[in-house]
Amino acid sequence: MRGLLCARTAMITPEESKSTPFIHRTTEYAPPKNIGHWLIGRPLQTADAPHQTIGKAIGLAVFSSDAMSSVAYGPQEMLTILAVAGTQALGYAFPLSMAIVGLLVILTLSYEQTIHAYPSGGGAYIVSRDNLGKMPALIAGASLLTDYILTVSVSVSSGVAQIVSAYPALFEYRAIIAVTLVLFIMLINLRGVKESGVTFAIPTYFFLIMIFITTGIGLFRYATGSLGVVVDPPRFELNVLHPITLFLILRAFSNGTTSLTGVEAISNGITAFKEPRSHNAGATLIWMSGILGTLLLGISFLSVQIGAVPSEAETVISQLARTVYGGRNFIYVAAILGTTLILVMAANTAFADFPRLSALVAIDGFLPRQLAFKGSRLVYSYGIVTLALIASGLIFLFNASVSGLIPLYAIGVFLSFTLSQSGMSHRWWKIGRLKPGMEIVERGSILHYDPKWHLKMIFNSVGAIATGMVMLIFAVTKFTEGAWVVLILIPALVGIFLFIHKHYHTLASRLSLENYGEPPPYMGRHRVIVPISNVHQGTLAALRYARMLSNDITAVYISTEPAETEKVQKKWETWGRGMRLVIVDSPYRLFLEPLLGYIEEMIANRQPNETITIVVPQFIPSKQIYNALHMRTADMLRKELLSKPDVMITDVPYQIP
Amino acid sequence: MRGLLCARTAMITPEESKSTPFIHRTTEYAPPKNIGHWLIGRPLQTADAPHQTIGKAIGLAVFSSDAMSSVAYGPQEMLTILAVAGTQALGYAFPLSMAIVGLLVILTLSYEQTIHAYPSGGGAYIVSRDNLGKMPALIAGASLLTDYILTVSVSVSSGVAQIVSAYPALFEYRAIIAVTLVLFIMLINLRGVKESGVTFAIPTYFFLIMIFITTGIGLFRYATGSLGVVVDPPRFELNVLHPITLFLILRAFSNGTTSLTGVEAISNGITAFKEPRSHNAGATLIWMSGILGTLLLGISFLSVQIGAVPSEAETVISQLARTVYGGRNFIYVAAILGTTLILVMAANTAFADFPRLSALVAIDGFLPRQLAFKGSRLVYSYGIVTLALIASGLIFLFNASVSGLIPLYAIGVFLSFTLSQSGMSHRWWKIGRLKPGMEIVERGSILHYDPKWHLKMIFNSVGAIATGMVMLIFAVTKFTEGAWVVLILIPALVGIFLFIHKHYHTLASRLSLENYGEPPPYMGRHRVIVPISNVHQGTLAALRYARMLSNDITAVYISTEPAETEKVQKKWETWGRGMRLVIVDSPYRLFLEPLLGYIEEMIANRQPNETITIVVPQFIPSKQIYNALHMRTADMLRKELLSKPDVMITDVPYQIP
Repeated sequence: MRGLLCARTAMITPEESKSTPFIHRTTEYAPPKNIGHWLIGRPLQTADAPHQTIGKAIGLAVFSSDAMSSVAYGPQEMLTILAVAGTQALGYAFPLSMAIVGLLVILTLSYEQTIHAYPSGGGAYIVSRDNLGKMPALIAGASLLTDYILTVSVSVSSGVAQIVSAYPALFEYRAIIAVTLVLFIMLINLRGVKESGVTFAIPTYFFLIMIFITTGIGLFRYATGSLGVVVDPPRFELNVLHPITLFLILRAFSNGTTSLTGVEAISNGITAFKEPRSHNAGATLIWMSGILGTLLLGISFLSVQIGAVPSEAETVISQLARTVYGGRNFIYVAAILGTTLILVMAANTAFADFPRLSALVAIDGFLPRQLAFKGSRLVYSYGIVTLALIASGLIFLFNASVSGLIPLYAIGVFLSFTLSQSGMSHRWWKIGRLKPGMEIVERGSILHYDPKWHLKMIFNSVGAIATGMVMLIFAVTKFTEGAWVVLILIPALVGIFLFIHKHYHTLASRLSLENYGEPPPYMGRHRVIVPISNVHQGTLAALRYARMLSNDITAVYISTEPAETEKVQKKWETWGRGMRLVIVDSPYRLFLEPLLGYIEEMIANRQPNETITIVVPQFIPSKQIYNALHMRTADMLRKELLSKPDVMITDVPYQIP
Repeated sequence: MRGLLCARTAMITPEESKSTPFIHRTTEYAPPKNIGHWLIGRPLQTADAPHQTIGKAIGLAVFSSDAMSSVAYGPQEMLTILAVAGTQALGYAFPLSMAIVGLLVILTLSYEQTIHAYPSGGGAYIVSRDNLGKMPALIAGASLLTDYILTVSVSVSSGVAQIVSAYPALFEYRAIIAVTLVLFIMLINLRGVKESGVTFAIPTYFFLIMIFITTGIGLFRYATGSLGVVVDPPRFELNVLHPITLFLILRAFSNGTTSLTGVEAISNGITAFKEPRSHNAGATLIWMSGILGTLLLGISFLSVQIGAVPSEAETVISQLARTVYGGRNFIYVAAILGTTLILVMAANTAFADFPRLSALVAIDGFLPRQLAFKGSRLVYSYGIVTLALIASGLIFLFNASVSGLIPLYAIGVFLSFTLSQSGMSHRWWKIGRLKPGMEIVERGSILHYDPKWHLKMIFNSVGAIATGMVMLIFAVTKFTEGAWVVLILIPALVGIFLFIHKHYHTLASRLSLENYGEPPPYMGRHRVIVPISNVHQGTLAALRYARMLSNDITAVYISTEPAETEKVQKKWETWGRGMRLVIVDSPYRLFLEPLLGYIEEMIANRQPNETITIVVPQFIPSKQIYNALHMRTADMLRKELLSKPDVMITDVPYQIP
């Protein structure tokens, strides 16, 4: 969906009626066509863009890769836990999947309500903020940011596990392949290839077709009794047969719930849908959940039937496809390719979601403000690179093992589910307090009376309780396996958010103009210092600019070589137009220090109300590579002098003509 | 010696008689006391500093660590080659050492002459440049830079080999220890601890005392027949007994010549000595060579006598000390500590030499010019970090194996020896062409007639031929073991030098004022654009500065949030003093793009001769850590706009009051 909305044409807004004559409102800024090369991710528009929206079929493709791709690892990770308790325990796989699908139904109903209540997009952060307050919102934000990182690590690791299943020779290189993939996705996002709905539709529908053919044929062959079992399954080393305990069953359930990650995506992106938006988004959500539930049940049923062995060497999906298609043939490879593609798409989605959520949090002043300006290449790149580096680091640390990463995953997702659903049920409770037909505006969102508020509150409360319980089960059963990391990380992130917010708040009050007296008069002495390294065309350009600023100009030359100095002196006599040139001898061949010394002396001796501007000629090479051959004097001076009041530094660029 | 010369007090030079009234020569710049924290390495002074020089005893300590430390690996690496041909071949060790000492004598005599001919310092680069021309000088420069890197890798690896010999449990961590040591030396150099002669004297003399005690007692015990052999020597695996061939002997000889690396150090630093400089430096050189030769002969003689086995697990020095002192006792540890210290000092010297030579090459325009200004912290740090990273990379690549690194080492040293000696002998030949008593100045150095020019030319020619032959032997016998890398690297570096020089040359001619017409008139329209993100005290400061520059001021506000925009508009009505404010609506929440778009429109529509200055309010946080929370708008604009002619960007810093 990203980039879909950016071709909006410029239009002049009606003049603001209140504006004073010296305030102009110009043309609204709409990114030009070529902005696509840095505009990545769905634009956070303030105004609406009714054209260029997407229908249900494309919407499904754009928003469901994260959720759908989870079937590639969810059932397998459930089996991994059950397998240690022997074949008998595997019988629990299908009932557990049914429980997970039950949870999916609850989630779907809850989010369906969120979609209608927040037609402009209701992510966990916004819903928590509007209904529960600051702290829950920050917890939701921290949870989601953590989880986007893990989505990248887990999805890419699982994608590589699929590749390795098809080509076992690559097994020992899986961490390298996974990290290379992450860096590749990072580069694509840095370059900002403009994605259309079609970019998403092709791999998503390719995956759906392949996985439905696979499970369809599998169920048909099961029904006709010709399915059989996995030929030559991967080895499973079982030293001690664990007993089937409730704890084991709950651990398996927790692992299985990772299949539900990504279900919330549609509720974040409602504005992208065609009108009637909420209706279309809601319908898409139901379709997505239907497909996801069917796949979950089908895959977990068949996996057990064929005697699939959970293994790092070959995924369950691969074992299933191999058994259904009778070997590693062409159609098997197509099924694996589809699965790998959807997993990579899911990781790619996180690269759009991470900066988008950061922007929301930044707008509220809990993350560096520059993140709120998504368009800025520099800032945006920073987020993409950060995400890629942390995700790659995790992949290396866990050697691209999905089973290793899973305990870190999903806590954040379920925590944000819980907060979002709690927020919604609090909202219904508030609506229940209204008189019929009444409408109030609270924290920017409109609450209007709904006669079915009881029912809706119950739906969302059930959602909140169910997801909250899953989160607790997850945290408890996975605590020692790695979940503790996340339980430390999320409060730490919240701490950082609060620290940042405090800084901005303090700053704003200190800079405020309330009780600020009349500012000091505008005029005063203006001295201009021009450091020169030679007398050439570039120097003259800087001097010309200096003359524009003031009549009080001093050129400074740092003399390290007497012969050179003499030449400069001669040229100054011809070209200096009578301006003052100060030569500072630097027998130790230092450059910056004597220059700084001279400037600092000027600063120390200045009159009250005197402003000093340093005008630095700066050569701009025609090619980037030559940059290393030229000093950035202005940058260095800026670094040293930026903290001095009333000293400004300007570079006057020159290029070879 | 580093930093010794920087306490020179400021003094006012006599007014230049030729200077015109508007050219001022100020106080000479002498670094203040606290400059020590970034002034690292011997200052390259243009003027002389007759006080603060050092005597022979300190001079020996300062300049000889590189040469003296070579005895820790030279003899051992010679034995490593001989050992594969069995015990009989080890008999060649002492005769080969005698040959190496012979070479040392030739080198010493040659450099003694260089010292007197170049009283202001005659490194291989300068001598080659003055007497042989550009290309030989560049080859010498490239060779030396390569070798400084290897000095760090080899010396530190050998130092760690000593530590590992004393504490064998550390063997498997040697690469980590070595890299940690390199990074430690790097940090010390980055922080720029001011070193005095004493800093060098203590470890150097400690090493000398320990090594002389060791060899002395060793020889005494040998003479009295109580020396014995190494107890429990390291294992030496010999699968095939190689025959004793000339090639093998020459390879052993090549390895042994690495003991001579560092002999040239004194000739580079003559100016540091007390007057009579050349005499003192020369005497120090002879002392150093005498000690080095004695140690070489002593160590190689004793090593063979005790049946030392060259090994990565225990150094020959350690085996010798252990045998002499009868075990790993306190005095043994002291001897090993001394050896390790001198090796680390040698590596540390390279950290001073590398930037110093870079500066010389940069002054001539073959390396980025900013390297010529040694004092600049930024630039200097860059060189130190580069050196540390490459040296660490090599250590990792060779797993801190001295034997692995040795084939890359010493080619550069001997190539520079050869060029330096050839340059000197060419110089004597030129002097031979003069009339008695005559004196000419050529390329900045004075040639005056010397009746003994024949003899001196012969000395230097013998030196050139001998070192040239060693270089060839080294290159041929070590070619496949790694010497080829250096034989590719040196021409590549020379290519880079020439590329850089060409760039500067082209640039200078294009910027030249020769045939440059009268510059365009100084005045024209001056528009000032002030991007603002709010109206607060910082904004007012920027506007105040803008008013100083011009009356044509436009403030620009990028509106992403209608509510915020309204507030800004209100404040502008109070504080804007009637200045123009342009509000650009940015519904996609972009910031930099609409601002750039607006500025670019201004640029496109400007009148001829119009200059645009962009004045950006820039918040300066009180603590470094807050920097990440504030946009560097000016830096971003600069990046995008620096190539536009006549657009200047200034930041007006503000801090919280």
